[in-house]
Parts: sequence; C-alpha cells; structure tokens
Amino acid sequence: MPALSPVAVLGLGPMGRAMVRTLIAAGHPVTVWNRTRRRADNVVSAGARLAATPADAVAASDLVILSLTDYQAMWDVLDGATGALAGRTVVNLSSDTPDKTREAAAWAASHGASFVAGGVMVPEPMVGTELSYVYYSGDTEAFDAHRATLARIGEPRFLGDDPGRAQLMYQAQLDVFLTTLSGFMHATALVGSAGITAEQFLPEVMRLFEAVPAMMAVDGVEKLGARIDAGEHPGEAGNAIMMGATADHIHATATSVGIDTSLPAAVRGHYRRVIDEGHGTESWTRIIEGMRGPQS
Amino acid sequence: MPALSPVAVLGLGPMGRAMVRTLIAAGHPVTVWNRTRRRADNVVSAGARLAATPADAVAASDLVILSLTDYQAMWDVLDGATGALAGRTVVNLSSDTPDKTREAAAWAASHGASFVAGGVMVPEPMVGTELSYVYYSGDTEAFDAHRATLARIGEPRFLGDDPGRAQLMYQAQLDVFLTTLSGFMHATALVGSAGITAEQFLPEVMRLFEAVPAMMAVDGVEKLGARIDAGEHPGEAGNAIMMGATADHIHATATSVGIDTSLPAAVRGHYRRVIDEGHGTESWTRIIEGMRGPQS
Repeated sequence: MPALSPVAVLGLGPMGRAMVRTLIAAGHPVTVWNRTRRRADNVVSAGARLAATPADAVAASDLVILSLTDYQAMWDVLDGATGALAGRTVVNLSSDTPDKTREAAAWAASHGASFVAGGVMVPEPMVGTELSYVYYSGDTEAFDAHRATLARIGEPRFLGDDPGRAQLMYQAQLDVFLTTLSGFMHATALVGSAGITAEQFLPEVMRLFEAVPAMMAVDGVEKLGARIDAGEHPGEAGNAIMMGATADHIHATATSVGIDTSLPAAVRGHYRRVIDEGHGTESWTRIIEGMRGPQS
Repeated sequence: MPALSPVAVLGLGPMGRAMVRTLIAAGHPVTVWNRTRRRADNVVSAGARLAATPADAVAASDLVILSLTDYQAMWDVLDGATGALAGRTVVNLSSDTPDKTREAAAWAASHGASFVAGGVMVPEPMVGTELSYVYYSGDTEAFDAHRATLARIGEPRFLGDDPGRAQLMYQAQLDVFLTTLSGFMHATALVGSAGITAEQFLPEVMRLFEAVPAMMAVDGVEKLGARIDAGEHPGEAGNAIMMGATADHIHATATSVGIDTSLPAAVRGHYRRVIDEGHGTESWTRIIEGMRGPQS
C-alpha cells in the first residue's frame, strides 16, 4: 500500500484538533503547529509531529490546512514562512469576509502558492463522520489534486474559482442558523414574561418550526427560489401586510414586556419597507428586495 | 340527532371565512357579519346567515367568534352591540398585545360576557384539518362549554386563565417563524452578491436548517429548556465567543456587499452583550439573559 500524502495543520482549536485526529486515523502523516504549544499535546499523543515553527510545518507538506480565528491570524502566522510557500496549496478553513478571502488568494499567489478557501459546516464532534460536509472555492486544479485527502474531513462541495464563494456560502448558512437561534431565545424570553417556561415552550414551538420549509413554499423551496430569482413575489395568504401586522404586534409586545426590541425591530423593518414601497399585497418573500438595498 | 349549537363569526377575512366553512361543513348553524358585505357572499352561498348588524350576529349565538385585524377592531365592531353581550362567550382570535387582550377580558366582563383569547397556529387552508391547532386562554368554564365546537377549527390547546397567555404563545411562535423567514431571505441576499441564486441556495441551506433542533441541543430541547430555566449555560463547542466572531463576520460581510445590516446587527448585539458582561465562554444560550433586560 502506498503511503498516504502528508498534511500540515496550523491552528489547533477544537476544529483543528478534530481534523488532525481524523487525518491520522485515516493514515495520513500529519505535521501540526499551534501558537500555544500545549494545545498540541493531545494530537501528538495520537501520532502527529509537532513542528517547531510555522515554516517548518509548511515545509513538511504540499497541503497546508489552516484552522485559525480569522484571516489576520493567517498573515500573523505565515509572515515568517512565506519563503516556504512556493508550490504548496494553502487551504484556509477560517471564517472571515469574502473580501479578505479574495485578498488572501492574491497574497498566496504572490508567494507562488495555490489558495483554496473553505468552511466546515458541522460542529467538530461530527468532523470525519458521514454527516460532515465542507464548502470549498478557489484554485480548481489545486483543489482537485487534494480532493481525496480533504474528503477525510467531510464531503467536499466545490463552488467554483471565486475564493469568496465558499466563505459566503458558509456565512449565509450560519446567518440562517444564528438568526434562528436568536429567534428561539427571543421568543422564549417573550413567553417567559407570562410565566411560560423554556421547558414548556421549546418543545411546543418545534411543532411549528419543523413545518417552516412547508410553510415557506407549499410547492417546495426550489420553486420558491426560482420565483425569487425571477423577482416574482405573487401575493397569497401570507402577504406582506398580514405578516407586517404580526411583526408590529410582536415588536409592541416585546416593548411592553421589556425585552430586547432590536430583533423584532429588524424584522418589522423588513415588512414596513415592502408596505411603504407599495408592495404590501405581494408575498412576504418581497422583503428580500428591500434587503438588497440601497440601504438607508 | 340533536341540532349542533349555533355560532356567530364576525370578521370574514380569509381566516374567518375558512372557519365559517369548516363550522358549516360540520353542521353548525352559523351567523356571520362583516364590515364589507360582499366578503360574505362566498360563505352565505355555503349556508351561513348574514346578520344585518354586529348586535344581530351576537344575539344569534352563545358563542361569538371574532376574526379581526386587531383588538381595536373588536371595540369598533361591538361598540353598538354591548347590550347583546350579557351571558355570551366572546372568543377573540385576533392578534394583538397581551395587554390589550387582558383589557378586552375586563371590558367583556363589564358587559356580563365571558372572554377567551385564541391564536390559530396554521394558515387558513389548513383550518379544520387534522394539522390545525389553536391556543386558547381565559375563562376556563366558558372555554370548556364550547370546547367541542371550537375543536372543529383545530385541536384546542388551553393555556390557563390568563387571557394574555394564548396571545403570547401565538406571538412567540410567530416570532420564531418571522425571524427565521427574515434570516432565510437575508442569507439569500448575502450569497446573491456572489452570483449564487436563491434556487441554488435554498435547497442547500435546508440541509443545515433541518439539523437546527439537534444542533441547538444534542440531548433534546426539553433538557435545553430546563437548563435555560435554571439559568445554566454551560460552555461547550458553541460558546458565545465563537458564535459572536461568526456574527461579527456576517455583519461585516453584509456591510461590505451592501445588504441589510439591521438583522445581523441585532444578532451580533446579542453575543456582544454576553461577551461584554464577561460570559463569553458560556453557551450561546446565554444570549437570553441579555434579551430579558434591562434594555439600554
């Protein structure tokens, strides 16, 4: 059996460590580096080699995976290792804006390296399992060369050569996730004002929550998406005036019971804009047109 | 077979009409009233009796169901009908603040009527089906007397004698629903800035969305609820610092691509407050403590 290709992993937070463990378990030689050395203890016991410097780690492998706080951390870490970058592929799985991601691709190119950006879509206990998937975009050739190795972490889903795309896809999904979590906690605070507990409320609201995709579009989200792309928002039961009236009541209730109003104010604002612009009888999906700006 | 009890329904928007059709189909004599008369045509053909005035409608039945825009509309409509209210049960299914709802209960009592507030949790095409359910709270005795009739509309779920509770439960669920919809459209606008279409994005994000309950709490939402009620937010992978960094990136990206920032600003604010108050290593659920106020 031929030896599996070596991998360097820089950044040993929970996600970085999970990736290292997964790669080692699959049989890859893995070299690691972390600013705080003791974070490496666990993966070194599992078989990883600890590099003395970032340059040492980079020199150990054609594939250099970064799992850092943000893109500035990449520049901080690799600043003294640029001489070792030529010919290698940097796969940065850190979160940041798409602009920073594109800037990083240009920076890598200036040092002779290929660049791929990625976003891991599952929490670290799921890394390496069948449920794991990771968006990538950037240098297609470099991605293809390392696809098999990257597939150890999770199913790779390549989004094309704009390195900002994977970042946007990652952030957009997290946008849905974080906004939903804030909605859950806000609603729990709302009912709490009348003595309904979180233990009572959360299972109750799940019944409605699980019906959200069906309630968004009776004929499926693909068709909903196609209509939105065509700029069509045909009025129906859930028109913007009705949804806006409910958003008004929720905001008024949040104000009167003394809980956070920033979240319901944002939601109310989305419907108010549609109504103010004379499209209140159209579907709630028209809120996307106002979100796309221009913003006041 | 004894005749089924008569019902009066005031307000013939889509929801009111759906309830009237359901009650008639079940065999109840139904008297209707609506400010705009032609809205009644459809249900009159189906067998409803059109009352000349609100007082005439109220006089026709012990059970008076209101399906209006808000609570002010109830006062506007019933102002000339207060003499007919004594001994009857007013079930108001309109949406408004819990305070208005409690005020309405006192007003009904001053005219000798019982009061029950309710919120229909399904869109009108689902009214009367097995999927339909309706929260109620208020006068328990009056509710019990009419439970069988109300069950025609949907499964009744009674929340106790505070008439504001059903309203809060309804609004809290719609809070989750509307916030989630805004999150979906915001994220769709975000990826749209790099040419990813809604048709591509929406089915893609569903994979993550359907995992939200499991990602909120690996051991189930009941246990999550119990921990929140106890004020316990044990730090874990999804701690407030990590979630807050992602919220920061999403806000920065929304700003840089020129889409709505009000929604990500609200979400970012929830995490910033936790971090600023020194609880960043606790779980994301700690955002509820800041939402509960005091609000700045």
